[in-house]
Amino acid sequence: MADLPDKRTAFMDWYLEVVEASELTDKRYPVKGLNVWTPYGLRARRNLDAVMVREIEATGSRAVEFPALIPATEFAKEKEHIKGFDAQVYWVTKGGTSDLDVPLVLRPTSETAMYPVFALWVRSHRDLPLNVYQIVNTFRYETKTTRPFLRVREIHFFEEHTCQADEAAATERVASNREAFRRMADAFGLPYLAVRRPEWDKFPGAFYSIALDIPVGEGRTLQIGSIHHYRENFARPYGIRYEAADGSQRFVHQTTFGLSERLLGAILAVHGDSKGAVFPTAIAPHEVVIVPIPAAAASASPAEVAADVADRLRRHGVRVHLDDGEERPGAKYYRWELAGVPLRLEIGRREAEGRTATAVDRLGAKGPIALDRLESEVAERLAAFDRALRSRADEAFRSAFSVARSLAELAGSTTVRLVAWCGSEACGRAVESALDGALLGTPEDPLPFEAGTAGPCLGCGARESVRWALAARPL
Amino acid sequence: MADLPDKRTAFMDWYLEVVEASELTDKRYPVKGLNVWTPYGLRARRNLDAVMVREIEATGSRAVEFPALIPATEFAKEKEHIKGFDAQVYWVTKGGTSDLDVPLVLRPTSETAMYPVFALWVRSHRDLPLNVYQIVNTFRYETKTTRPFLRVREIHFFEEHTCQADEAAATERVASNREAFRRMADAFGLPYLAVRRPEWDKFPGAFYSIALDIPVGEGRTLQIGSIHHYRENFARPYGIRYEAADGSQRFVHQTTFGLSERLLGAILAVHGDSKGAVFPTAIAPHEVVIVPIPAAAASASPAEVAADVADRLRRHGVRVHLDDGEERPGAKYYRWELAGVPLRLEIGRREAEGRTATAVDRLGAKGPIALDRLESEVAERLAAFDRALRSRADEAFRSAFSVARSLAELAGSTTVRLVAWCGSEACGRAVESALDGALLGTPEDPLPFEAGTAGPCLGCGARESVRWALAARPL
Repeated sequence: MADLPDKRTAFMDWYLEVVEASELTDKRYPVKGLNVWTPYGLRARRNLDAVMVREIEATGSRAVEFPALIPATEFAKEKEHIKGFDAQVYWVTKGGTSDLDVPLVLRPTSETAMYPVFALWVRSHRDLPLNVYQIVNTFRYETKTTRPFLRVREIHFFEEHTCQADEAAATERVASNREAFRRMADAFGLPYLAVRRPEWDKFPGAFYSIALDIPVGEGRTLQIGSIHHYRENFARPYGIRYEAADGSQRFVHQTTFGLSERLLGAILAVHGDSKGAVFPTAIAPHEVVIVPIPAAAASASPAEVAADVADRLRRHGVRVHLDDGEERPGAKYYRWELAGVPLRLEIGRREAEGRTATAVDRLGAKGPIALDRLESEVAERLAAFDRALRSRADEAFRSAFSVARSLAELAGSTTVRLVAWCGSEACGRAVESALDGALLGTPEDPLPFEAGTAGPCLGCGARESVRWALAARPL
Repeated sequence: MADLPDKRTAFMDWYLEVVEASELTDKRYPVKGLNVWTPYGLRARRNLDAVMVREIEATGSRAVEFPALIPATEFAKEKEHIKGFDAQVYWVTKGGTSDLDVPLVLRPTSETAMYPVFALWVRSHRDLPLNVYQIVNTFRYETKTTRPFLRVREIHFFEEHTCQADEAAATERVASNREAFRRMADAFGLPYLAVRRPEWDKFPGAFYSIALDIPVGEGRTLQIGSIHHYRENFARPYGIRYEAADGSQRFVHQTTFGLSERLLGAILAVHGDSKGAVFPTAIAPHEVVIVPIPAAAASASPAEVAADVADRLRRHGVRVHLDDGEERPGAKYYRWELAGVPLRLEIGRREAEGRTATAVDRLGAKGPIALDRLESEVAERLAAFDRALRSRADEAFRSAFSVARSLAELAGSTTVRLVAWCGSEACGRAVESALDGALLGTPEDPLPFEAGTAGPCLGCGARESVRWALAARPL
């Protein structure tokens, strides 16, 4: 097989080829943007979901599932929201052979499905906070070019929706969600920045939106999730109110936290390299692949030792794949490197007779391990691999940003730019226009490097209330 | 709260009240037949899914996920199939503000979504068997009265689809599926019969259909799943062919195996009683509920002991709920019995001081357990509870059937009837008309009791090739 395209200079070509060659998805389904989750890709997704479930449930959120079909009448209740989604929803207009009295929307997100029911669930301050999440598929009639995991029409989606007693409690939930995402990202080895979006780019109906952004090279970024504070913006049209301890009736303040399969695409984009995909162990479909190397006259059979090693690791809870197929070992190495398996164990005549295995991790670290200490040595090597992977990602992350000191510097940027911004829309738009990109907003996390104090504003030259903002070309 | 309706004489009233009072679902969503999965109901569903995944993966099936939207052009390829579903599919006709060129069907089942892609996946005999399954939601524009879990418009669905080299291999897959379901049903304590449906009631497009039926009282039955042999019926229109070892091109033979959330409804229907729901431990949202009984002057605090017991059981992998709310203990007992929790541990002053707990299972078995042996005693009591539950279900199952010796006997049946049937459609229809019900077909499992040799046929009086068949009023 030919080499992969260069990730640094032809990111999207590289990405598409890695996703396809590693058999994570099949995009030959007869509708564009609706892809098939293959066994390999679905395993990665299940592992990803398990991390999300573990971290969000640790914060007291409970799983629910609301219907996929939303009546047009409910969908239309919050004006900004419907305006934001009008052009990209699928409409169900017929049931059997007859037209539906009330057309149904295939959920693009579930505010309008959940909130009429939240109005029934929340009665008293004792019902608060209400923290629930669901993992479902959502649908968008995408008119831009679709890309596996990154921009699709049926989207595997995580969405938490909460009701809080007041604005301060909702602000605290936003902080709790940010912490939960920090723990998820740590499991994925993924550096990112939480960025408060400018007013003109917030979620339709939100009071404010915090996006989770990563750089993907060439000055481009990917939004991999978002956390929104809604204040009472949805509670009022949907009538979600409660009796406070003092007997008064109040509207709840709401928050949401959304992630999608795009996170899987981001993990592939960040960690992958010239040999193909690289999975952090937390989501790797196989954490370890074992390749026996046939030997004719060995006193111990590599095939038998390999099967025994696989059994032992499986019993220890490791996701193992024993590749005992008929291909040559070299072809297997190539294929499993392309598919991003963190650790390979080679077992040939020398290893079988010496009760060892040759361990090679996906970043190239290589050495023998003693089968007597198999379980602990595999665990150590996987942990070392994860640390090295994170370290490589952190380095790429830091070098993906640079400061721009004038609007003129922005043209043709190949990094994400830090710009001094006074906060006005006019100056934000000036940055967007100079870059031919977007002002992502103001970082809520520490910057990737020490950039000093921001100012003066690149747009108007103001020196008061100037902050660092990020500008990039979102993918 | 008033008593529940009588399960034996008013099954559906009883069922609806149990499902609602135990908060397994919320049916106040603004579209009829689209219900909300509550945290409690969704936990039961996740446990149910885990059993299905475990058993089907043990047979070598791999998880995939195909899109929910199927182009009308693919949907129409198998003539019998589309005829069977035409009246009950939802149509997506608009994306954003424009009409779609090709309307999309929301999958009622996934043959027509999967098989165009199977035609790409299967090339050679080395690609066979292809055994894949998915757990997704399907959609039916249901015009009959909807019932939580039993008949809904968005259906949580398990579907396995396989491709085999020939008819015999497909017949073997049907047998393997039947074994897998046997193991699932054992986990749920669920007696059932596999019944081969008559020609006029098989799945649209199938060569033959085996249904999994359970009696639910008053001569009614519930189909909780099905296994189909398709021969080449779908492979031909979708072009799923392979190169055999001898170089010839052949069409695959296919099978499918379907289960749905109706299985959850069936478990509730079979095991529930006059006190409410009863969950087998395998799917119980909480296997154990712990109720501390406050005591003012105890030398050991019931609340502290209860918290410690909960921690110990959780670490041991038991799904525990510690109910330390402010309600009276009696109110908690009542609520958790209604919700079907298998085992309750009461810890008051006497228990706390004596290092014991009073264990009461959902069928009423009661006794003290020593906290020194907490984990093993809880495991034993749960196992004993599951055995007792299965035994109660088996007894009800046997008494739900009776033999009918003439068509005249069928009118007003309050049991499922065993009838001698020659196999002709005319005689089958005569039975259906006399019962005002359905001829379910011929059992593939041993009958629930020794019924002797069948014959003569209730319709025509024939004595040759006569077999037992089942007749009932399907719910």
